[in-house]
Amino acid sequence: MSTIDAASSASKTAPHRGDPVTPAKQRLDNEPGEAVDTQSVRELLERGRTLTTPVLRAAVDRLASPMDTVAAYHFGWIDTDGRPSSGDGGKAVRPALALLSAEAAGAVPETGVPGAVAVELVHNFSLLHDDLMDGDEQRRHRDTVWKVHGPAQAILVGDALFALAGEILLELGTPEAGRATRRLTLATRRLIDGQAQDISYEHRDVVTVEECLDMEGNKTGALLACAASIGAVLGGADDRTADALASYGHHLGLAFQAVDDLLGIWGDPESTGKQTWSDLRQRKKSLPVAAALGAQGEAATRLAKLMAADAKKSQAEFEDFDEAEFAERAALIEQAGGREWTSQEAQRQHTTALAALDSVDMPGRVREQLAALADFVVVRQR
Amino acid sequence: MSTIDAASSASKTAPHRGDPVTPAKQRLDNEPGEAVDTQSVRELLERGRTLTTPVLRAAVDRLASPMDTVAAYHFGWIDTDGRPSSGDGGKAVRPALALLSAEAAGAVPETGVPGAVAVELVHNFSLLHDDLMDGDEQRRHRDTVWKVHGPAQAILVGDALFALAGEILLELGTPEAGRATRRLTLATRRLIDGQAQDISYEHRDVVTVEECLDMEGNKTGALLACAASIGAVLGGADDRTADALASYGHHLGLAFQAVDDLLGIWGDPESTGKQTWSDLRQRKKSLPVAAALGAQGEAATRLAKLMAADAKKSQAEFEDFDEAEFAERAALIEQAGGREWTSQEAQRQHTTALAALDSVDMPGRVREQLAALADFVVVRQR
Repeated sequence: MSTIDAASSASKTAPHRGDPVTPAKQRLDNEPGEAVDTQSVRELLERGRTLTTPVLRAAVDRLASPMDTVAAYHFGWIDTDGRPSSGDGGKAVRPALALLSAEAAGAVPETGVPGAVAVELVHNFSLLHDDLMDGDEQRRHRDTVWKVHGPAQAILVGDALFALAGEILLELGTPEAGRATRRLTLATRRLIDGQAQDISYEHRDVVTVEECLDMEGNKTGALLACAASIGAVLGGADDRTADALASYGHHLGLAFQAVDDLLGIWGDPESTGKQTWSDLRQRKKSLPVAAALGAQGEAATRLAKLMAADAKKSQAEFEDFDEAEFAERAALIEQAGGREWTSQEAQRQHTTALAALDSVDMPGRVREQLAALADFVVVRQR
Repeated sequence: MSTIDAASSASKTAPHRGDPVTPAKQRLDNEPGEAVDTQSVRELLERGRTLTTPVLRAAVDRLASPMDTVAAYHFGWIDTDGRPSSGDGGKAVRPALALLSAEAAGAVPETGVPGAVAVELVHNFSLLHDDLMDGDEQRRHRDTVWKVHGPAQAILVGDALFALAGEILLELGTPEAGRATRRLTLATRRLIDGQAQDISYEHRDVVTVEECLDMEGNKTGALLACAASIGAVLGGADDRTADALASYGHHLGLAFQAVDDLLGIWGDPESTGKQTWSDLRQRKKSLPVAAALGAQGEAATRLAKLMAADAKKSQAEFEDFDEAEFAERAALIEQAGGREWTSQEAQRQHTTALAALDSVDMPGRVREQLAALADFVVVRQR
């Protein structure tokens, strides 16, 4: 238990409503050798942050005013009044992966830094634009950029971060940088495809599990795949090695997203920084919902009926639901097996991610650290 | 006269209100050897379109649904109902430049095609986002994408076109492609800087001529500089040659923008597809306004007073002005010398653009065609 709590950087010892990660946790505890090496993960994330943040900040400083300030607010480096802030910059899994990826190719971790920075820039470009498109008012417990600085700045600064990503990589001036940028560009296109799918799914009654996995592969898998291979590419790895590392990252991303989908319904608002039943309020067709609607039986039938009626309601009517109505839907999803299926899916993706590492010849320590990161992703609580 | 009319692809023989291009035209006619070779320019633009459009369409076809459709609507290839359309795809100056740029480096024009396509993708990414940020409802005589398909699609498809630009170049897999992408990325950052300046200037009473030129250099000059050098880079030119061609493109862009600023106030709505006094309605701090406000004398003083009062009005009050009130402001700008100064500025930038070509060793025919394109840009009527 202490292992898991410590691995979650927002760990709380108070009991969580819904206890979202129990299934995954139990499964990990039951499989010897797969328990999370917390100390190692904490150090990896910290190393990623320490090596990446100064370079990321220097890159953002290149932006003209007021975009530099807006970006600094987005990253949590300053508050709404421009005062320095030690905000929550996220879990920093991507930078940690990019650095390990360089080491997997036999290079020093520093070789992966421009890749880590570029991936972080693209990730944050997508957050800025997605928050605006989705109308999300909160991220990481703070008002989103479009809410504070207006839609135009959210668009503009997102664009600028995307451009900056290519700039940072290509100024290395090496053939490896060209290959890395190409991979990042392709990943970005998949990121955009995923957001397009996400938007279109919101207007549909039913989304299949396959469609949902495809969307999540684009929206989350592609950039984690890039993070897990970009350091290796910068370190001179061949395409076969880079592809294997990308496959690890892709499945890690799908495991991450499955856990995210569980937290989106059953997560503790204090840990996630979101409302209770957050994804249900947004009518998000996430994995537990897709799996439940695809199941047989009374609970699935009742859920389908409720959700078909919900789909006809205006957003305002829908948001007027009281807690009990969302709780009812969440209970039906669970009864129909959507929660359990998603937990198992996280585990399946975790296993596939680790298997992808087998084809790569890398130092044993690096392999263990990549495995520890994969474990961490599955047991996190936010 | 016939020379100029034929050079403008939207030429009308009916007299134009305001006759926006007379000053530039007269100056060109008065300088022997600088008259526009219309036949040559028409062929150059046509060649750019013919070689670039199929590759551009194939690139856009890579986008997932519905982004491919939204992009096809934006480019004018289909109408709002999805029916094929032979819409107005713009003047195609950038593709023509990219192809000539390859020839300036001794390569075949086809070498410049991926560069032309990438530049067009970035240009249209910026149009999609700018139209949304600026709230512009019309472009090229049609409803803008955000108006037809909603803000989310305008953001998403813009992002996708930007990503596609890097993809198209980097899949060439050559060191030249890496250099070309780096130049395009830097140009895109300047494009974004320019839009940020444009937005911030709208909230200010006065913008100096220097600030206006800086903004226009970013917003228009940078991408034309890239178009004019990207073909040469792909053709293996060294940085010195590419920089000289970029300088030609930069000043060509400033000349283009000066003419655009004249058309934005005195252009014929039938040619420009915009409202009368379009830039004045949008309170745009364009060159003629900046030059007039920076001048001495009665007209400048009266204009400054009017505009300071205008700045206090709401957008709705402001748009309620009748034609005579805008006409009064336009007349004051002209009396204060803003129109004449901007005409002369277009000419100065045109001269500087041509001078930049002197340092590049290129075939005489290519030099003449680059000069003809520069002439065309200064005398255009839309």
